[in-house]
Amino acid sequence: MADIPAYRRIADEIGKLILEGHIADGARLPAVRELAMQRGTSVTTAVEVLRLLERRDLVEARPRVGYFARRPRPGVPEPAMSRPRMQARQVRVSDVVAQMFSADGDDASRPVPLGAALPGPELLHSAALQRATARWTRRSPRLLTGYGLLDGSPRLRRRLAARYLRCATPLDVPELLITNGCMEAINLALRAVCRPRDGVIVESPCYFGFLQVLEALGLKACEVPTHPRTGLSVAAVERLLSAANGRGIRACIVSPTNSNPSGATMSDADKAALVALCRRHGVALIEDDLYGELQFSGARPLPLRHFDTHGEVMLCGSFSKTLAPGARVGWIAAGRHAAEVRRLKFAVSVTTAPLLQEAIADLLEGGAYDRHLRRLRAECERQLRQVTQWVIEAFPVGTRVMQPQGGFLLWVQLPGAADAMALYRGAADEGIEFAPGPLFGSGFADCLRINCGQRPTRRIEDAIRRLGVLAAELATDLAPRAA
Amino acid sequence: MADIPAYRRIADEIGKLILEGHIADGARLPAVRELAMQRGTSVTTAVEVLRLLERRDLVEARPRVGYFARRPRPGVPEPAMSRPRMQARQVRVSDVVAQMFSADGDDASRPVPLGAALPGPELLHSAALQRATARWTRRSPRLLTGYGLLDGSPRLRRRLAARYLRCATPLDVPELLITNGCMEAINLALRAVCRPRDGVIVESPCYFGFLQVLEALGLKACEVPTHPRTGLSVAAVERLLSAANGRGIRACIVSPTNSNPSGATMSDADKAALVALCRRHGVALIEDDLYGELQFSGARPLPLRHFDTHGEVMLCGSFSKTLAPGARVGWIAAGRHAAEVRRLKFAVSVTTAPLLQEAIADLLEGGAYDRHLRRLRAECERQLRQVTQWVIEAFPVGTRVMQPQGGFLLWVQLPGAADAMALYRGAADEGIEFAPGPLFGSGFADCLRINCGQRPTRRIEDAIRRLGVLAAELATDLAPRAA
Repeated sequence: MADIPAYRRIADEIGKLILEGHIADGARLPAVRELAMQRGTSVTTAVEVLRLLERRDLVEARPRVGYFARRPRPGVPEPAMSRPRMQARQVRVSDVVAQMFSADGDDASRPVPLGAALPGPELLHSAALQRATARWTRRSPRLLTGYGLLDGSPRLRRRLAARYLRCATPLDVPELLITNGCMEAINLALRAVCRPRDGVIVESPCYFGFLQVLEALGLKACEVPTHPRTGLSVAAVERLLSAANGRGIRACIVSPTNSNPSGATMSDADKAALVALCRRHGVALIEDDLYGELQFSGARPLPLRHFDTHGEVMLCGSFSKTLAPGARVGWIAAGRHAAEVRRLKFAVSVTTAPLLQEAIADLLEGGAYDRHLRRLRAECERQLRQVTQWVIEAFPVGTRVMQPQGGFLLWVQLPGAADAMALYRGAADEGIEFAPGPLFGSGFADCLRINCGQRPTRRIEDAIRRLGVLAAELATDLAPRAA
Repeated sequence: MADIPAYRRIADEIGKLILEGHIADGARLPAVRELAMQRGTSVTTAVEVLRLLERRDLVEARPRVGYFARRPRPGVPEPAMSRPRMQARQVRVSDVVAQMFSADGDDASRPVPLGAALPGPELLHSAALQRATARWTRRSPRLLTGYGLLDGSPRLRRRLAARYLRCATPLDVPELLITNGCMEAINLALRAVCRPRDGVIVESPCYFGFLQVLEALGLKACEVPTHPRTGLSVAAVERLLSAANGRGIRACIVSPTNSNPSGATMSDADKAALVALCRRHGVALIEDDLYGELQFSGARPLPLRHFDTHGEVMLCGSFSKTLAPGARVGWIAAGRHAAEVRRLKFAVSVTTAPLLQEAIADLLEGGAYDRHLRRLRAECERQLRQVTQWVIEAFPVGTRVMQPQGGFLLWVQLPGAADAMALYRGAADEGIEFAPGPLFGSGFADCLRINCGQRPTRRIEDAIRRLGVLAAELATDLAPRAA
């Protein structure tokens, strides 16, 4: 908590009052000097507070008049709780996914990249990492001529443990193992506890990669009702486990913070309840913490693992969404499954390439990563709000949009019985790429996920507006708002 | 073939005549000028020929007298064909393996590294790769800020295809996929064709990593008689498949060239026969080509894939034994299974880190890799011969030693009923590490694999001699030769 600057803390508090209606929409806020006095802070800080609230679209500055509260986009409904059938099913995800990882570069002939979940290169400020990588490349030939250690760089693992300690989640360095990205971590976690045909609880919608992993391992996905704002329904998990006791549900994969695709974040109470519930039923809990550091405001949300005092939650993450997807550096803190995970890691890929582990550890040590994250969060928020605005303007009336509190993914539900796959094909013909709902589980035929990690240029704006027109054409009885 | 210099070609021919007894042991060879005339070459080349034969211990130079043929180490017997039970069995490999990947660095307090199969850092001449890596790090931030392509670097894949074309093995670039080392490639190959409890044919002995992969995937290893010089017995595979037709043998993993641990290389006739046999029985053939480029003399042995005209052989390899274990860059050319392998790759680790792929592609393009390989092969041969000599001198009478024609691994069989695990524990107490025979399959309780990739320093020599003493103490009725 100590690392949140005063202006951020104050802005968070005022923002919360506006969002929750305690400060009425349109109400005049105190002027700069008044605010500084009220909060016992400097004028500079008060200016920062109001600027940040403005960037967050929670305050409108009318020149020479003053500052006014503004509740965001009233009237934009969000998608509702999902209602999957909760039956374990063998999964099969289409080749749309492979397609998203077949285009590279950013020249204008490539599709508009709203598909893969990825911050734009300019957001990743890679210069510091480039310098560190070049330094280690010169300094330490052993990082190329040796295999590195099975567990990964001790220095990076110590730094990771220190980071999690800052959000009150103590990890033992020996249980931490560095992986080829988060996907390998999830694979290791599942393989440590599941046998083929076991059932695995997933959110609905959930990241399509999880469905692919389950398919590849011959496991059954059990999709559980999930609210796109508050996440996995613990009550539904409880019903399922009580009914299915011993019917082969062995694990639960959940992204409790800024989940992909919906952006949902579970409350602390739900997180604690889920940990206790899974423990009671002997279900292994696999936490995907990929977006945990990308909360826009307030303290970093607590990981599930924080609520686990028995080493039962396998905590997985990576630097792919915050620093360098191309480094392919992830981690798993596997608790009491650490020995099994270690054994599997050798059989899966021996070790993880050591060079970039050391370079990343440098950034974590020097504070560069923290500074970078602050900028990244602010940019993600700005971009997400901007793209949301375009979607609201351009998409047909009745479109539902989630407004997440972190990450860079926008989950959109089309009105009527619109067919997102038809939209996907139509958009692909025009060189626009997004992730269609059916990738994320059953029952999302009318949904799409838009990556807002890319800088919101005119090209992106045009693509969003074009998507809106195409969506309206699909539902011919609905006119696009912008028409 | 065109890239073998004349002196190498001539030395290979003469060496073969000596090895096969067509030139008698002790026979005088032509003098330099005479040799140059006979072969229609320069005096310089003739000198090179004789020097190379001398380095290979096939010629003895007696100053002012002349050159004399010398058949290598007569009287050192090699281990015999293995006789495994050929029953499919669930495998379980010990933690000895994890131990080998838990030590790093080369300071004197670490165990003497005769365990992991690894060329010493000075053999890998990493300067060129360091320069290329630093260059790409500076030049192309996208290699960090993007995921890279699912299939890997197109440039590297084209270069790999071009290399295999040089040994008459055409591959399609689209079937080539870059992996996190050879181990991930083997995993992908197995997962593309096998289901849990399927049987998989392996050599006996075989690389312990394969046994670990099979264990982790719930597959059964079917160990087949293998000669430590000529490799997998195709006749035994044929008997097994005829008897077991339809009994769940789905794949065969084989390292046909300089196999790990024994160094065996299959003949071309055997390779062709194995390809045809597996095709006839619908058994997927997975080729591990990890040591294919490390043949000491003559042309590079043909891959199994050369004999396959139906895209049935999945060819796997990596740069871990020849250039940079720490790069974790491998490949698979999966033929008709390429689409399935591609789908699995995403679910296993999304992509392989792109930075080092580009750096390695530079070395392949510029010819630096070929020059490096020539040096590496010569050094491996020299080191292997040196360590072999020490083993012969120091180990108990009756010890059998394989004299492989490539790679850097020495397979040793102790006399009597010596227990290699007891030797392992005794040696570990004294800070000496090697790979005990039981890791490599059933029936190798009296065997050990010694890594000769490390520069044969006095410390290595002392360790080998100490191993000999320990081995003799285990078989108390046998005295060490050096005693």
